[in-house]
Amino acid sequence: MFVRDCWYVAAWDHELAPGRPIGRTLIGEPVVIYRAGTGGLVALADRCCHRLAPLSLGRVEGDELRCMYHGLKFDRSGRCTEIPGQDMIPATACVKAYPAVEKHSWIWVWMGDPAKADERLIPPAVGLEDPAWTLRSGHMDYEANYLLINDNLTDFTHLSYVHANSFGATEAFARSRPNVERLERGVRIWRWMSGGLREDAATRVHRRADGDMWQTYDFLAPGVLLMLTSTYPEGTAERFGQGPPDPGVVRPLAENFTSQAVTPITGKTSRYFFSWGPRSGEGSDAVADAMLQLAHMAFGEDKAIIEAQQRSIDTAPGQKEVLTSADVGPMQMRAVLQRLMREEASAAEAAA
Amino acid sequence: MFVRDCWYVAAWDHELAPGRPIGRTLIGEPVVIYRAGTGGLVALADRCCHRLAPLSLGRVEGDELRCMYHGLKFDRSGRCTEIPGQDMIPATACVKAYPAVEKHSWIWVWMGDPAKADERLIPPAVGLEDPAWTLRSGHMDYEANYLLINDNLTDFTHLSYVHANSFGATEAFARSRPNVERLERGVRIWRWMSGGLREDAATRVHRRADGDMWQTYDFLAPGVLLMLTSTYPEGTAERFGQGPPDPGVVRPLAENFTSQAVTPITGKTSRYFFSWGPRSGEGSDAVADAMLQLAHMAFGEDKAIIEAQQRSIDTAPGQKEVLTSADVGPMQMRAVLQRLMREEASAAEAAA
Amino acid sequence: MFVRDCWYVAAWDHELAPGRPIGRTLIGEPVVIYRAGTGGLVALADRCCHRLAPLSLGRVEGDELRCMYHGLKFDRSGRCTEIPGQDMIPATACVKAYPAVEKHSWIWVWMGDPAKADERLIPPAVGLEDPAWTLRSGHMDYEANYLLINDNLTDFTHLSYVHANSFGATEAFARSRPNVERLERGVRIWRWMSGGLREDAATRVHRRADGDMWQTYDFLAPGVLLMLTSTYPEGTAERFGQGPPDPGVVRPLAENFTSQAVTPITGKTSRYFFSWGPRSGEGSDAVADAMLQLAHMAFGEDKAIIEAQQRSIDTAPGQKEVLTSADVGPMQMRAVLQRLMREEASAAEAAA
Repeated sequence: MFVRDCWYVAAWDHELAPGRPIGRTLIGEPVVIYRAGTGGLVALADRCCHRLAPLSLGRVEGDELRCMYHGLKFDRSGRCTEIPGQDMIPATACVKAYPAVEKHSWIWVWMGDPAKADERLIPPAVGLEDPAWTLRSGHMDYEANYLLINDNLTDFTHLSYVHANSFGATEAFARSRPNVERLERGVRIWRWMSGGLREDAATRVHRRADGDMWQTYDFLAPGVLLMLTSTYPEGTAERFGQGPPDPGVVRPLAENFTSQAVTPITGKTSRYFFSWGPRSGEGSDAVADAMLQLAHMAFGEDKAIIEAQQRSIDTAPGQKEVLTSADVGPMQMRAVLQRLMREEASAAEAAA
Repeated sequence: MFVRDCWYVAAWDHELAPGRPIGRTLIGEPVVIYRAGTGGLVALADRCCHRLAPLSLGRVEGDELRCMYHGLKFDRSGRCTEIPGQDMIPATACVKAYPAVEKHSWIWVWMGDPAKADERLIPPAVGLEDPAWTLRSGHMDYEANYLLINDNLTDFTHLSYVHANSFGATEAFARSRPNVERLERGVRIWRWMSGGLREDAATRVHRRADGDMWQTYDFLAPGVLLMLTSTYPEGTAERFGQGPPDPGVVRPLAENFTSQAVTPITGKTSRYFFSWGPRSGEGSDAVADAMLQLAHMAFGEDKAIIEAQQRSIDTAPGQKEVLTSADVGPMQMRAVLQRLMREEASAAEAAA
Repeated sequence: MFVRDCWYVAAWDHELAPGRPIGRTLIGEPVVIYRAGTGGLVALADRCCHRLAPLSLGRVEGDELRCMYHGLKFDRSGRCTEIPGQDMIPATACVKAYPAVEKHSWIWVWMGDPAKADERLIPPAVGLEDPAWTLRSGHMDYEANYLLINDNLTDFTHLSYVHANSFGATEAFARSRPNVERLERGVRIWRWMSGGLREDAATRVHRRADGDMWQTYDFLAPGVLLMLTSTYPEGTAERFGQGPPDPGVVRPLAENFTSQAVTPITGKTSRYFFSWGPRSGEGSDAVADAMLQLAHMAFGEDKAIIEAQQRSIDTAPGQKEVLTSADVGPMQMRAVLQRLMREEASAAEAAA
């Protein structure tokens, strides 16, 4: 149901204050995360091995975390180092530790085999402090399975219907099909598009309504979207034969970048993290503010339809779907996740 | 669990504005209903065949309905007529269509075999615009199985306890038994009653406290109650040998009529539609207003006891009941529904 | 899952007004309790045998209770004595009756075999009117299984972490271990403690910060805690060899008493009743008021951690616990309840 051997976004890094553990449920497992006194992140199972109270209600003491029910203390590896009033500490007194990394403004937690936790697998999101971009950020909770959100993010035909008002998308999105390439751990989706946005909407986001729009994004396991949108002078798409432009040859007139992450909380709930904003430069702060407002409106539209879709699915589990040519992105992405899950299962079998 | 081959009240007709589809769950199935641009009602499964989003969030375009997630469009038979960006439309791209009729101020939907949808089976409720009556209307949602509400409406002994305050019912209702006749698709319940209401209550509803009260109603599958209550001069009951009066021979002093419908939403929730009011005439508007106020109070009393009954049943499923002679109406009605369900099962078996 | 042959606290006696039946769910069973007109308590299954409506919505008539749905009336033994409009009353028309006793300000209900209901098994709680003590009382509902609350009350190591702020408990509670004796139907827990409370906290409750604190309580099936806390002159613990003091020899400087009862509503919800206060005397009213305020704060802390513990357990049912030497009290108490349940099962088997 979930890929385990991958990095999940658990939180924005600014959610994690020193000395304040936070509890997050990731793919159904409660995890407590805190900053160790001597630096670095610690992520442990959020359930004391003694009487199962959540450690996220605990107290950080140096690098360690004390359960605030009966006082057991755990080090960063999850080993119990103190049972108040008792000298002997049994070897079974420990909780699971998860690899955790702070990178690109996000807290990433590896939910699978710790031996396989490879930081190079962290998707190259753009952090909020990156000087090249002026970004704004937020998050949103869904009452929906993460795959429905992944589907939404890998098929933009919905823009014409769900986001006609907010993003000002025209029917062009629904009527055209992007290029979809399979990657090792995701898909790459790109296209040239003209007339995809109403003039007023294009002006709002790109500060200009003319030109050819180039849009390319990677969507990487488990659910990370990294997308560049650029406006080039009219004719650029043709000049590059409808293929990727070379910014060294033609400079884009406007650009923006968004990093997004979908994290399953449970099989029926998810958290969606996002940042968005224009290339840094004169006036980019005001544009970034306007884009955030727009994002909240548009992502609220996604949430409404996706949660309704989830409720609809729940009233008829197992209902077959009739797929269309717009479902290439979603199906490729689901296939990648299926393959990763199969590989994990095989590895587990081989190890047993 | 539900009769399918019958007309269910889905809504008041005034709930359905042109161009505004509504979603209603009937016997556990989500249904979208809208007025076609060229006239007539359309009722379809409220679940797009593509990615299962609700069509009730869709957009009416002429006689057709477009899903507002990815833009598939459906005609009134449920056939998909457009997939944006794709020429070929597979034959499997369709949703179930339900026969739907607007009549007597209600939207009726046939949940069973469309070939058997016979409009003559629509119970002869009195519509809100009927000039003979001055009616007020409303609806109420129950956290209870529809059969518990049907039971309540086919056994008025509860009036003496549940409605002693609102309707001013005396113990006469509990101590007497009405006549119950089995009909093809329901039961007919009638009786003469004197002293059934306290004087103040009788005056409030009937504008007089004297006389013999004649009450007769049909309760028809799946849960439609059509009831006439008349006050005749004292002695009329005796004059007609306690049998049905002949209004051509003796004119009633006062009369009122109520149409009610119980529609299962799920097995645990139901919607209850009602209208009530006096014969039209001088002052009937004020009486109708007072009766609506009374109805809200009384039906709230029913809701309180029936929902408590449902919760009580839920804590001990399968608990046996000790029936009394007051349960003839409810049991006859349940037997009718059982027979209809058996007939449907036999027909389905024969067809297979 | 529950001991049946024991007295459960269903309510404070002041919750039960004459003529006003109350409905309470005890160990998953709905029970209606009322004061009979001629005196004495009546406790019946809160579910009419007719159509299963709750009798707690009913009307007390003398010693009897009338269901306010269709009017059936029941006597204190649960036998139906009237079916309105029907002469014959079938022998099956009855509801279960439970032994019920009002004692020590609580309403106690025996949920097991009525033949075994022995009033001597009612724990000797201190009633609110006892002149020796100045008591204040309250109750609190838990979204947690009762055993988690029992565990909390039989292991005070949690005071050092959960109640550091409210009760001002120091680490002394966590670092020491009390004496635990097994009783026939519970455990007795006692200890001498010095430095268990911060000075300010000790002053608040005991009106003095010096001295040796003597604490002893019985925790009796199903979940009744009766605890005496006394402050003795410094050196008293040593004088009695760390054993029970003799108040005839040395008079305590301050004393307080608390009676508490944990009653399972369902397997996942519980109600917690409590009273607490000092020895009666000059100024004891003000102290009792201050103690109640403190109790609400501290018991709120327990509720927060125990409900979090329950939620944590629910996300991983069957998760093993690593017990410590602090768990002697909880485990002894659980063993007593297990033994009582086994004895009931054996008796039921022998009877069959």
